[in-house]
Amino acid sequence: MTLPASLLDSLRTIFPGDALDSGDDALRLAARDHSRHAHRPDVVVHPATHAQVESLVRACREHRVPLTARGGGTSSTGASVPLAGGVVANFQRMDRIVRIAPDDRLAVVEPGVTNEALQQALAPHGFFWAPDPGSAPWCTVGGNLACNAGGPRALKYGATRDNVLGLRAVAGTGEGFIAGTQTTKDSTGYDLTRLLIGSEGTLALITGATLKLTPRPAAVRSLRATYRDTASAAQAVARIMAQPVTPAALEFMDALALKLARDHAPDADVPEAGALLLIEVDGTPETVRFAQDAVARAARGDGLLALDVAADASENTALWAARKALSFAQRAVTEHKINEDVVVPVSRLPELVAGAQALAAKHAVPLVCFGHAGNGNLHVNLLPRDVDEIERGYAMLPELFALVIALGGTLSGEHGIGVVKREYLPLALGESTLALMRSVKAAFDPDGVLNPGKVV
Amino acid sequence: MTLPASLLDSLRTIFPGDALDSGDDALRLAARDHSRHAHRPDVVVHPATHAQVESLVRACREHRVPLTARGGGTSSTGASVPLAGGVVANFQRMDRIVRIAPDDRLAVVEPGVTNEALQQALAPHGFFWAPDPGSAPWCTVGGNLACNAGGPRALKYGATRDNVLGLRAVAGTGEGFIAGTQTTKDSTGYDLTRLLIGSEGTLALITGATLKLTPRPAAVRSLRATYRDTASAAQAVARIMAQPVTPAALEFMDALALKLARDHAPDADVPEAGALLLIEVDGTPETVRFAQDAVARAARGDGLLALDVAADASENTALWAARKALSFAQRAVTEHKINEDVVVPVSRLPELVAGAQALAAKHAVPLVCFGHAGNGNLHVNLLPRDVDEIERGYAMLPELFALVIALGGTLSGEHGIGVVKREYLPLALGESTLALMRSVKAAFDPDGVLNPGKVV
Ligand SMILES: Cc1cc2nc3c(=O)[nH]c(=O)nc-3n(C[C@H](O)[C@H](O)[C@H](O)COP(=O)(O)OP(=O)(O)OC[C@H]3O[C@@H](n4cnc5c(N)ncnc54)[C@H](O)[C@@H]3O)c2cc1C
Ligand SMILES: Cc1cc2nc3c(=O)[nH]c(=O)nc-3n(C[C@H](O)[C@H](O)[C@H](O)COP(=O)(O)OP(=O)(O)OC[C@H]3O[C@@H](n4cnc5c(N)ncnc54)[C@H](O)[C@@H]3O)c2cc1C
Repeated sequence: MTLPASLLDSLRTIFPGDALDSGDDALRLAARDHSRHAHRPDVVVHPATHAQVESLVRACREHRVPLTARGGGTSSTGASVPLAGGVVANFQRMDRIVRIAPDDRLAVVEPGVTNEALQQALAPHGFFWAPDPGSAPWCTVGGNLACNAGGPRALKYGATRDNVLGLRAVAGTGEGFIAGTQTTKDSTGYDLTRLLIGSEGTLALITGATLKLTPRPAAVRSLRATYRDTASAAQAVARIMAQPVTPAALEFMDALALKLARDHAPDADVPEAGALLLIEVDGTPETVRFAQDAVARAARGDGLLALDVAADASENTALWAARKALSFAQRAVTEHKINEDVVVPVSRLPELVAGAQALAAKHAVPLVCFGHAGNGNLHVNLLPRDVDEIERGYAMLPELFALVIALGGTLSGEHGIGVVKREYLPLALGESTLALMRSVKAAFDPDGVLNPGKVV
Repeated sequence: MTLPASLLDSLRTIFPGDALDSGDDALRLAARDHSRHAHRPDVVVHPATHAQVESLVRACREHRVPLTARGGGTSSTGASVPLAGGVVANFQRMDRIVRIAPDDRLAVVEPGVTNEALQQALAPHGFFWAPDPGSAPWCTVGGNLACNAGGPRALKYGATRDNVLGLRAVAGTGEGFIAGTQTTKDSTGYDLTRLLIGSEGTLALITGATLKLTPRPAAVRSLRATYRDTASAAQAVARIMAQPVTPAALEFMDALALKLARDHAPDADVPEAGALLLIEVDGTPETVRFAQDAVARAARGDGLLALDVAADASENTALWAARKALSFAQRAVTEHKINEDVVVPVSRLPELVAGAQALAAKHAVPLVCFGHAGNGNLHVNLLPRDVDEIERGYAMLPELFALVIALGGTLSGEHGIGVVKREYLPLALGESTLALMRSVKAAFDPDGVLNPGKVV
């Protein structure tokens, strides 16, 4: 599309100087995220204030021109790709940490601050913000909010949706509004805050957030347990989750993930086993060993091969080496990773892993399963090495999603829907739920200006 | 209003026998909750299945007849009063606990089960459901969901909204739908689950819920701290909340609340002080004393008068006697308690208490302040003893709410809006936020059939 000249004029007035960019480099960068989708926008703008965002949405709405928000561009679902062209609003210049209030356990931030910069600013106050995606150095709080991002610590501390008190935003109508509060309890009207979280920029653009902070635990200890097979590891996960000490992380790797890590990092001491659990507990220096003991007791049981318990921080790091090695190993196998983040009730994990492995065998595509076992949230990653395997990999997805739904699970635990999972949404949600989501979309964005082609 | 004959016919078909009741007793009972509002419905129905609720909403919508859900009727805001008459759907017969799954840390229930019955069923499995309102023996899970109910333990374990995975419901359109999942993480489309929680039966009728369970801590210990004045107690609250051990409860009583409790229960050993904190920590038998120590350290500081630390369960109970005595004492003063549950950022508690006391002096109405200090959620209870004081009490409310908003707080932390706080909602939310809430209402309930006159 070509932007109407009068819209470009308005945009130039709202975004003077280099706050508007239609240069080739800018358009090329804004065309992609970490999915295989790409589409160039017509112009990129860099808001610095809430008022600018209001004017921006109004101008785009008036001309019915698509408007897509962008943070770090690390989405793996095409969520930040401007599928229909138009305007991309890059929030990275709105990166101020407005206020940190330890007494109130909250921080007020602009959406463009990276997750890592926020964590660094919070650390001297003795706090952290719970969402801890692997992309922390690059992804923004705005992107975390829009995707409901998680990470290993979500098990104990919740994902993004559990760690936000309030938002400031601009709806697709062009109206600015405030959702939520600065308080940890709120029964005052409908919960628009959590409605926006996970909505992938399709309902409103987020211009500010009041985040709930968590005190940093003073002591952290890891455990590593290997099992004969997935079923016995999954039973251990269930035992661990049924006792009162909730681990800060409870990560799983299947036999194929272990083999891959071992093959590519022979020095990393990756154990040979049917399945592995990496567990982290935290607390105070006085209590952490009791937490470690409680979890170790639960980890023991039928099928346990070995249990390693870290005595200090350097031993913690050594136990996590297998997981670190896996990230590199996947990249060494292929550049065309198809990474899914399906989620099932914890008790259905063995069936999910067995089912995914059977499907991968049937379609003849290399597969590794690993991830956040305590939440039932597994990364089912296909690693196709050539065009044929890529094709077979995508052909397998409908069957994988059908399996997940049959197990009482759903499509995405933390990455979101974007464009890549959109066609499977009816499978997961049913027609009446989708119809309600569409009418919510219409209420916030009556002209369909915000991030068209995503989610619903 | 009189119900159209054809609607009554339909309702009799949907609800045979005693599942439909238009007797005087039934209508009288359904006319009230724990507010001062009352209005008789025309008929009360007792759904037993989701399908019946779908038929019910469709029939009411077809005839544009108001339909109000009812659980235990313990709302203190008029939320369950059928202001415009019509049909009341009493959910108390849908009280099955369908499934308890400890491995998945979830329970599937019907909405009519009482909070207490649920907790009793969960206890043998070693779990509880976090929301713990004082009304637990009478209130239903459906009412808890609709009001986003809390209680003391919300501080550590969250309120209702933080402890639900998914819902089954029927929108005001008459369409049944499923929101959320059976998993603890979910980034699959818009969050309709939390949108319904706290919506007070104005968007959809809830027919089933998948609740997130928490393991019961094996050990619980209390502490009681008295302070010279509210400011030093509030500083202690901030110190407690800034260290890593989050208490399971952190309750506050002001000097007037203490005096009232002492006057009415001379034997309860209620201390004399400017302010009191009741604190509960939990953990395992090995770790609970470390938690107690950490909180005791934080409780100490300028203005502390005395700190009592319970050594066992019977000492726990003794320390909470002052709080127990207060409930009875309030009832002894008046039957016309005006109870508010405003909420402010924790650091603003001293200003809230001082401001509320100044307003009560100005309007010459007896007042006590107490409640969930760790959340900044205080019960500001006016205790008018005659008609004049009642009138002056209501006259004070707009000033109280203006104070709360000025302190960065909001109208309700856990009781909801209902009819009694509805006129103050624009003050708390602003016009653009309210407009979005109204369009969400229109999306779910286009003909305004569900609980008219409430919330928005
Ligand atoms: C190496 C790597 C590791 C990862 N690890 C994890 C992980 O552990 N856990 C996890 O959950 N995810 C993970 N992800 C996925 C991704 O990082 C997250 O989804 C992240 O939240 C995206 O943030 P972003 O700033 O990059 O957003 P973008 O990719 O720029 O945008 C994502 C979505 O957010 C919207 N958006 C951005 N800013 C705003 C705003 N201000 N207002 C409204 N909408 C907005 C966009 O329109 C888009 O829909 C990983 C990705 C990579 C590449
Ligand atoms: C003595 C006492 C102590 C209390 N203590 C607390 C406390 O500590 N914390 C707290 O948060 N509250 C407290 N409350 C307030 C009240 O108990 C709660 O709000 C409770 O959640 C109401 O539940 P209920 O079943 O009685 O609901 P009802 O009063 O019957 O209804 C309340 C609202 O829920 C809606 N509703 C009920 N069922 C459904 C359904 N199935 N689908 C959709 N909507 C539905 C109704 O339409 C209404 O809007 C207290 C009340 C009393 C009287």
